[in-house]
Amino acid sequence: MDPHDATPSTPQNKSKRKKAPGAATIGIDAAKKTNFSSWYQQVLLRGEMIDYYDVSGCYVLRPGSWEIWEILQEWFNAEIKKRGVRNCSFPMFVTEDALNKEQDHIDGFSAEVAWVTQSGSTKLEKKVAVRPTSETIMYPALSNWIRSYRDLPLRLNQWNSVVRWEFKSPQPFLRSREFNWQEGHTAHLTKADADTEVRDILGLYTQIYRDFLALPVVPGQKTEREKFAGGLYTTTVEAYIPTTGRAIQGATSHCLGQNFSRMFDISFEDPSALAEDGTARRAYVWQNSWAYSSRVLGVMVMVHGDNQGLVLPPKVAPTQVIIVPVGISAQTSVEARERILDATASVENALEQAGIRAQSDTRDEHSPGWKFNHWEVKGVPLRLEIGSRELDKDVVSTSRRDDSSKGQLSLSKISTEVPTLLDTIQSDMYNRALDTFRRKLKIVTSWNEFTPALNDLNVCLIPFCLDEGCEDSIKAMSERAANVGGQEQDATAPSMGAKSLCIPFAQPSELENTDTICLREECTRKAQKWCLFGRSY
Amino acid sequence: MDPHDATPSTPQNKSKRKKAPGAATIGIDAAKKTNFSSWYQQVLLRGEMIDYYDVSGCYVLRPGSWEIWEILQEWFNAEIKKRGVRNCSFPMFVTEDALNKEQDHIDGFSAEVAWVTQSGSTKLEKKVAVRPTSETIMYPALSNWIRSYRDLPLRLNQWNSVVRWEFKSPQPFLRSREFNWQEGHTAHLTKADADTEVRDILGLYTQIYRDFLALPVVPGQKTEREKFAGGLYTTTVEAYIPTTGRAIQGATSHCLGQNFSRMFDISFEDPSALAEDGTARRAYVWQNSWAYSSRVLGVMVMVHGDNQGLVLPPKVAPTQVIIVPVGISAQTSVEARERILDATASVENALEQAGIRAQSDTRDEHSPGWKFNHWEVKGVPLRLEIGSRELDKDVVSTSRRDDSSKGQLSLSKISTEVPTLLDTIQSDMYNRALDTFRRKLKIVTSWNEFTPALNDLNVCLIPFCLDEGCEDSIKAMSERAANVGGQEQDATAPSMGAKSLCIPFAQPSELENTDTICLREECTRKAQKWCLFGRSY
Ligand SMILES: [Zn+2]
Ligand SMILES: [Zn+2]
Repeated sequence: MDPHDATPSTPQNKSKRKKAPGAATIGIDAAKKTNFSSWYQQVLLRGEMIDYYDVSGCYVLRPGSWEIWEILQEWFNAEIKKRGVRNCSFPMFVTEDALNKEQDHIDGFSAEVAWVTQSGSTKLEKKVAVRPTSETIMYPALSNWIRSYRDLPLRLNQWNSVVRWEFKSPQPFLRSREFNWQEGHTAHLTKADADTEVRDILGLYTQIYRDFLALPVVPGQKTEREKFAGGLYTTTVEAYIPTTGRAIQGATSHCLGQNFSRMFDISFEDPSALAEDGTARRAYVWQNSWAYSSRVLGVMVMVHGDNQGLVLPPKVAPTQVIIVPVGISAQTSVEARERILDATASVENALEQAGIRAQSDTRDEHSPGWKFNHWEVKGVPLRLEIGSRELDKDVVSTSRRDDSSKGQLSLSKISTEVPTLLDTIQSDMYNRALDTFRRKLKIVTSWNEFTPALNDLNVCLIPFCLDEGCEDSIKAMSERAANVGGQEQDATAPSMGAKSLCIPFAQPSELENTDTICLREECTRKAQKWCLFGRSY
Repeated sequence: MDPHDATPSTPQNKSKRKKAPGAATIGIDAAKKTNFSSWYQQVLLRGEMIDYYDVSGCYVLRPGSWEIWEILQEWFNAEIKKRGVRNCSFPMFVTEDALNKEQDHIDGFSAEVAWVTQSGSTKLEKKVAVRPTSETIMYPALSNWIRSYRDLPLRLNQWNSVVRWEFKSPQPFLRSREFNWQEGHTAHLTKADADTEVRDILGLYTQIYRDFLALPVVPGQKTEREKFAGGLYTTTVEAYIPTTGRAIQGATSHCLGQNFSRMFDISFEDPSALAEDGTARRAYVWQNSWAYSSRVLGVMVMVHGDNQGLVLPPKVAPTQVIIVPVGISAQTSVEARERILDATASVENALEQAGIRAQSDTRDEHSPGWKFNHWEVKGVPLRLEIGSRELDKDVVSTSRRDDSSKGQLSLSKISTEVPTLLDTIQSDMYNRALDTFRRKLKIVTSWNEFTPALNDLNVCLIPFCLDEGCEDSIKAMSERAANVGGQEQDATAPSMGAKSLCIPFAQPSELENTDTICLREECTRKAQKWCLFGRSY
């Protein structure tokens, strides 16, 4: 298949006259199915979500993506503030001493830490790291601020960017050297309080995916092998990219236990110890940290985008409705032209009044067809067309970005019918993604079926013994098996091994009381849990 | 005067049992007037706006300051979005090549640039700078994005932090190595469009100071000597700290002219050239950049704060009203106690319903007096007290933070009278600051009066020739003169020279048509403008 066939009506090469490689053409000339990696980058560039940058692994987040980030940020801020979380801003720099304080933790990052060693041409006495995450930056302060059980819970959050100088090949949103996120850091009196918050926040992350990005996720707990280093346990929402059959960690909510609070002496006088013998005994707080990053935008693009470009869920689309006047030519009378343009303006106004992010494209220099393509590449969920034919019938024509279906809406009910249609698009997008995911989420109970299922782009729920060595074996064996099968090493059928994604909270059936054995060939241990395994980003 | 006298009723040394030097006591033990620098730091620490950090020149912005920042951010975002500005996020790193591209510009920062030279233990092939400002980061992208006059105006803004590794002694909010700001960067078709925007944005900065922070500022233009390096001209709002008699640059809105657009080739096909001879001629865009930083918070604290701690303007106070139940003792009956606590809860609820950020302090372990101090240090604008005496009369007692005045409000009208009282506090705070500023803004027309006026903590409007050499002389001479006078070199009467702050847009009288000579001793040039000079931060 010629990838150029994918976008037959796009005015390619129209304005290729300047420097940037991707910015010149507005159509997409790589097919999602056969050339996923190029397709993804083109969709992001031509959909104007990102631009390249001359520091490798860093990207420009253009308004087209940043405004989506802001919509999520506004909602998430309101939710966490309801729960008593307060925003703050800690420095981006951390000393070597502080960073090295918690060894398990720093081991996970140390090779990727970016170090500032000079200012101007002067060497710094002590180099400082650009934050890879803020545990070691914030916890000395928590130690000072928390003195009594009455200071608990203490809940802080910050929005910033963090730096991990990876040398693996970068991927916009999914793996970049600097990325944006929120990081919540909280301290609690009891483990039970911490546990409750971990799951509560994970519920917010599920909502971001489900209700805003129209994406299903599997909430669950990471295995010991895959949990956040230095923490007690990690919960996660796992998403799935159908085209590559690969899973992706969507967001994580960690219970850190008392590991960091012991290291950083975040302690208080224990009220229960006081009650018993009258002397103050120091107790350590229970801590959580939780984060979601701009990665969510990458997952959204990878799942919903198509060969014509971005497909944005209405809830997060910076422009939800684009209104295009049609049927105006050199022969159109001044009156007819004005009638169309007036109607365009009044529809735009009515929709804005109704709280819809609507925009009209009344530029003379482009044809309606050009505009259709232009806004399709950008993923605008709904296009309205207004011409004399529409106005004669008191309607507007509609064209949905998600499924290309056309229709008409009554002009007089536009303020209520457009919001309803946007809601329908949102839920249809979610349901389609959910259907696909359900079809590709396989329950596998025989080892022989495991690698073939992965090769068929599935993620697999398997009975698992939870042993770390067994987990490594599964990864190694599924990699080998794929290679033996002679699969090509490309993005859609990677030969990489499957790793454990999570132990879903929703287990298909009880395993503890049965005699089910772990799936992995030659493992004779009893299965403890159904565990989700898959190739992943 | 013993500085400890300033806060007689504060429970000092109450909980001095842990690490942080400032976090333990809740009162302020330095007087604003006699020990300004210590006072400022104590107010910020004990008012819980900041905490110290182990990288020198970096500070923790606690929720107490960050939530003020967010209130300003929300308003400013809405205003610029109305104007078509779109938010985005560019990388924090910049290559040496890009940074050095505009020489005048980089000369202003180069000694303070923080360089990342290694990742993990590996030396980077090419070091990268942490952004000191984003002109050189963003403008290569603008060059790609702007192709036609139809792409103009292009208006972008980002909220982030920037790093300038200064070695002068740091001051929270006023001079820190990392600081938070917004930076707007826009491109226009004509100089007139750029000029209009420069002033429009400066108007928003005036509003931030006047309407939110209750502070008067002088809007004006910087002299050539003081303008932003590499730009065409700089406009500014200048604020004033009465205690030290020093001015401070409040926020700046720059017209960059075509200097950067030539350097970075940000050009388009000129429609007017097209019209004349039919061939496309390239023209360069007119650019602006504009920014305000977390410095605004420092100015607010310095002007409004008093010997009891922070004094926050109601518009930006994270907690606008604190409600304290009073008159409850061991002798109080269960019924009387419940009546008071019920009333406290219902007042809190009524105020929240009315959109007021209200909070009640019902802790058992602290006396009302302790709580009064606690919330005074934090600057909460209005305290409501509710006890049996109040409830018998269907009132609440009020205590204003700004002027300590007491009063009573009818319980039944609490939802309307509290907002009105908060508005009064806001405007009273502004008017007091304005009165002070007017008294200390001296029109000086004789050189002999200049340095004495500065020593008397004034800023001075003087007739000025606008010559750069003359400006340097004024600075040097006012410094010498102060030293000769034998003034102590402390913060309240610094011997530093006066620099030009701005040429106010509102000139006291026309100078161009008169024969007024420049103020500076021995200068014989004709005065061009009234220029504001002062010692400054
Ligand atoms: Zn096993
Ligand atoms: Zn002069």
